[in-house]
Amino acid sequence: MRICVAQLNPIIGDLKGNTEKILRAIEKAREQKGDIILFSELTICGYAPEDLLLHEDFIAANEECLKEIVKASAHLCVIVGLVRHNPGKGKPLLNSAAVICDGQILGYYDKRLLPTYDVFDERRYFEPGKEVKTFEIKGKKIGVIICEDIWEHSGYVETPYKHDPVVDLLQEKPDLLLNLSASPYQFDKPDVRVEVCAKAGQTLNCPVILCCQVGGNDELIFDGYSVCVDAQGNLRQLGKGFEEDFFTVDLDSPICNVPFQYDPTNDLFKALVLGVHDYFTKLGFTQGCLGLSGGIDSALVACIAAEALGPENVLAISMPSRYSSEGSKRDAEILAKNLNLPFKTISIEEPFDDYLALLEPHFEGKEPDVTEENLQARIRGMILMAISNKHGYIVLSTGNKSEMGLGYCTLYGDMCGGLSVIGDVLKTQVYELCRWINREKEIIPWSIIERPPSAELRPDQKDLDALPEYDIVDKVMKGYVEDHLSAAVIAERFNIDRAIVDDLVHRLHRAEYKRRQAPPLIRVSKKAFSVGRRFPIVQGWA
Amino acid sequence: MRICVAQLNPIIGDLKGNTEKILRAIEKAREQKGDIILFSELTICGYAPEDLLLHEDFIAANEECLKEIVKASAHLCVIVGLVRHNPGKGKPLLNSAAVICDGQILGYYDKRLLPTYDVFDERRYFEPGKEVKTFEIKGKKIGVIICEDIWEHSGYVETPYKHDPVVDLLQEKPDLLLNLSASPYQFDKPDVRVEVCAKAGQTLNCPVILCCQVGGNDELIFDGYSVCVDAQGNLRQLGKGFEEDFFTVDLDSPICNVPFQYDPTNDLFKALVLGVHDYFTKLGFTQGCLGLSGGIDSALVACIAAEALGPENVLAISMPSRYSSEGSKRDAEILAKNLNLPFKTISIEEPFDDYLALLEPHFEGKEPDVTEENLQARIRGMILMAISNKHGYIVLSTGNKSEMGLGYCTLYGDMCGGLSVIGDVLKTQVYELCRWINREKEIIPWSIIERPPSAELRPDQKDLDALPEYDIVDKVMKGYVEDHLSAAVIAERFNIDRAIVDDLVHRLHRAEYKRRQAPPLIRVSKKAFSVGRRFPIVQGWA
Repeated sequence: MRICVAQLNPIIGDLKGNTEKILRAIEKAREQKGDIILFSELTICGYAPEDLLLHEDFIAANEECLKEIVKASAHLCVIVGLVRHNPGKGKPLLNSAAVICDGQILGYYDKRLLPTYDVFDERRYFEPGKEVKTFEIKGKKIGVIICEDIWEHSGYVETPYKHDPVVDLLQEKPDLLLNLSASPYQFDKPDVRVEVCAKAGQTLNCPVILCCQVGGNDELIFDGYSVCVDAQGNLRQLGKGFEEDFFTVDLDSPICNVPFQYDPTNDLFKALVLGVHDYFTKLGFTQGCLGLSGGIDSALVACIAAEALGPENVLAISMPSRYSSEGSKRDAEILAKNLNLPFKTISIEEPFDDYLALLEPHFEGKEPDVTEENLQARIRGMILMAISNKHGYIVLSTGNKSEMGLGYCTLYGDMCGGLSVIGDVLKTQVYELCRWINREKEIIPWSIIERPPSAELRPDQKDLDALPEYDIVDKVMKGYVEDHLSAAVIAERFNIDRAIVDDLVHRLHRAEYKRRQAPPLIRVSKKAFSVGRRFPIVQGWA
Repeated sequence: MRICVAQLNPIIGDLKGNTEKILRAIEKAREQKGDIILFSELTICGYAPEDLLLHEDFIAANEECLKEIVKASAHLCVIVGLVRHNPGKGKPLLNSAAVICDGQILGYYDKRLLPTYDVFDERRYFEPGKEVKTFEIKGKKIGVIICEDIWEHSGYVETPYKHDPVVDLLQEKPDLLLNLSASPYQFDKPDVRVEVCAKAGQTLNCPVILCCQVGGNDELIFDGYSVCVDAQGNLRQLGKGFEEDFFTVDLDSPICNVPFQYDPTNDLFKALVLGVHDYFTKLGFTQGCLGLSGGIDSALVACIAAEALGPENVLAISMPSRYSSEGSKRDAEILAKNLNLPFKTISIEEPFDDYLALLEPHFEGKEPDVTEENLQARIRGMILMAISNKHGYIVLSTGNKSEMGLGYCTLYGDMCGGLSVIGDVLKTQVYELCRWINREKEIIPWSIIERPPSAELRPDQKDLDALPEYDIVDKVMKGYVEDHLSAAVIAERFNIDRAIVDDLVHRLHRAEYKRRQAPPLIRVSKKAFSVGRRFPIVQGWA
């Protein structure tokens, strides 16, 4: 038996375009003499369609696309993910896999475990399926399940479920288990996915094939890496990471084991590149711009953008003020040259002076404070937005996760942009990525990496004046935000002064109002400052 | 039997402060010789705590507060809402009511119907309760349920559930049904809540008392209006709207029926006032500022803010440009005078000229377009933010729902602010509210209401140049956004040209990226552009 795995990159809601991709893959499976072609979760509409699911005409259009796929299934078995009406009680929809053979729908499997945590809202839309299902295809008994259904068995879920569909399948004794997935990238997670499949294969004593979605959809990055493991849990085949792929598993041929080799830092970089690339191309944009300060954050974003869009499509703008150091200004220019980015310098001195003069009577003699710093950041944001408006660029926001966490950033200033490229990358990871970029030659001037971080918004300002070392900040951010540890536990586990932890946690919560207005970011951690993290702005807890 | 209803305004997560309120109410109930005191849903932590629930120390702290409440319950029965650990499988928490009598916890009722739609994410945190519960208190059999549990019975839920707890209670034959609620305000909904209670009372043939939360929490406004109906479904007592209240129901005294009289427009105004008031006071702010253009939107926001904060705490800033009409400038000043607002004029002419000169070389000879319009809006935003930073004000954003829907607004410009006051109020409702404000005397100059709407960002600009009549816009917004109707149905139902509907729907989706960065708004409709509406930015559907 030959199973083709179609690892596709859909556009959410582009039912026509996605269906065309599906039909082309079916054609290819036929050419390759496949018996079955397996697609990812919600193939027709792409994952996650969110509240498009509340529109009845959207559901109806999905069902129309299914008809076309059924028509195209001659001499082949197609297993495709789609949303369909719930014929029973409860939520009106089901997250299903249609099993179609030779022009007939054999049946549906409805996803049983509906993730409703972090970025996942599946209980908002779907009623959970009630049954285990296997399908007889060419003499084999094939179990079909969807994404999360396989995860409970390994315990890799945020909250436990009341059922384990893998265990429930045991009584059916399937010859093969197929899983339609849309499992987002997470730093260090791809090998976990292999482990999850291996565990299910061992339990059921049959091979497991898992087809993943690939591509960037708003904040979520799907990394591909579709998986085939044998009944012993050995990895036999692997889809490409971060791009579309199509491969065929021949269950009857002896296939050598393959290792799952990946470089976490390289993958993190690829995830960010894919996030930028897909955000632009799926929206129909080709060009971007960013403020290049000579600091490390904008340096990293410039490298990612150059890779994603081509350097000629990334306008770097240096916007120095009286507080910009010569080193920063020079480094920005050198970096742009190293990356072959078009480069402009626009001084903010004049508008800064003008605003100070304009506002002076309204500041009522108060001392300079963060207001004047914010003014500079906002003038820069305004220049970027004006150039973006005039030329049709998307502004890339360059703030990192540590700053976003603490609110060490200016709303409507450096937070401006259509996409926050590294808003889910901690400052310590920013350093790691920059060193990795320079692993063979100096692309980012080393002085950018080695200079003590500074916003350069007042004389001799350093991040360290306002914040503890980033190593400490990031331990608190990770412990509190990603692992929901208490301040007490963080202080003890990482040996950090409790007062420092409390202060950082307090700042984190106080900055919620800023993050609420931040651009969408590219999620790469298990908990990003984005739609998967929902905290009240007004609260009395911390 | 005497039941006291404590309609409180909690601060989310302020467990200590909320518990103090609870203890004071218990004291009052004792003074009033109450047998039972009923609180609202999740009384201890306030509704909705969102992801604070993921912090284990937060749950533990809730349980500590419960102990204090138990201690204070001598000679009284206290029914209080709280989060607690789920001793069974599935999600780790339960949304519960503790029934405490005379120092002992009699038991818990766990909410069975967990709303997971719109702004509600209860399945994200809670496992649904499995059982109907009644409690014997002073010889009476009392059913206790929580909020949504009572709604399925009347069919007023967004998606149907598989159970109807009211029907399930029938076999228990309760003498009284108590409901702990946190049911947010929605234009035209308060009377529905009475209807829902009446229906349950009639079915169970017993009185129903529903205790509501009151107050603004981020975007949600809880309007109070706690309800007591008799077994015939007649309204017997009603809590105050939009403020805390405490009242006692004596089941043994004959009480006259009361009518539920409310004025929808007055209530809408009160909801917006409460939203502003609580956002400020719960964050510890007293003063706000806004741009007063002489247009109708900022006029309405000024009236709301003056009512919420006191006029002396609302700085109105007129920021005219070359395109501002004499009428607008004059009207802004008159309105500020009518409302007794401190008033400043800061012309944006100079910074606008300066930016044009600064950016001219970078505009590469392109014609003036929306860039120059956005520049003006952003200069205004920048001035407001600078004054806000310097003096500790919160900027009030003045955009309405129709503009927000179509993206007829400038990101980082007029969209600036800590709170969007009328971001969930359609333009046609803005007119209605302004006329209502002027019902007795001219507070808002009539010329503001009567002048054709214009952003005044280029010569002789009118909203009608870019948009259809707001009457049409609002029908499409309401039909598409609130009722999820298809473009085809909207065109037919409201007799609007299909091409116009399609264009508005397309614009609506294209503006998703702007709304993602909008300030939090005060939700007053059944579907606001806020956390309760989740659409992808990158999508190919519309």
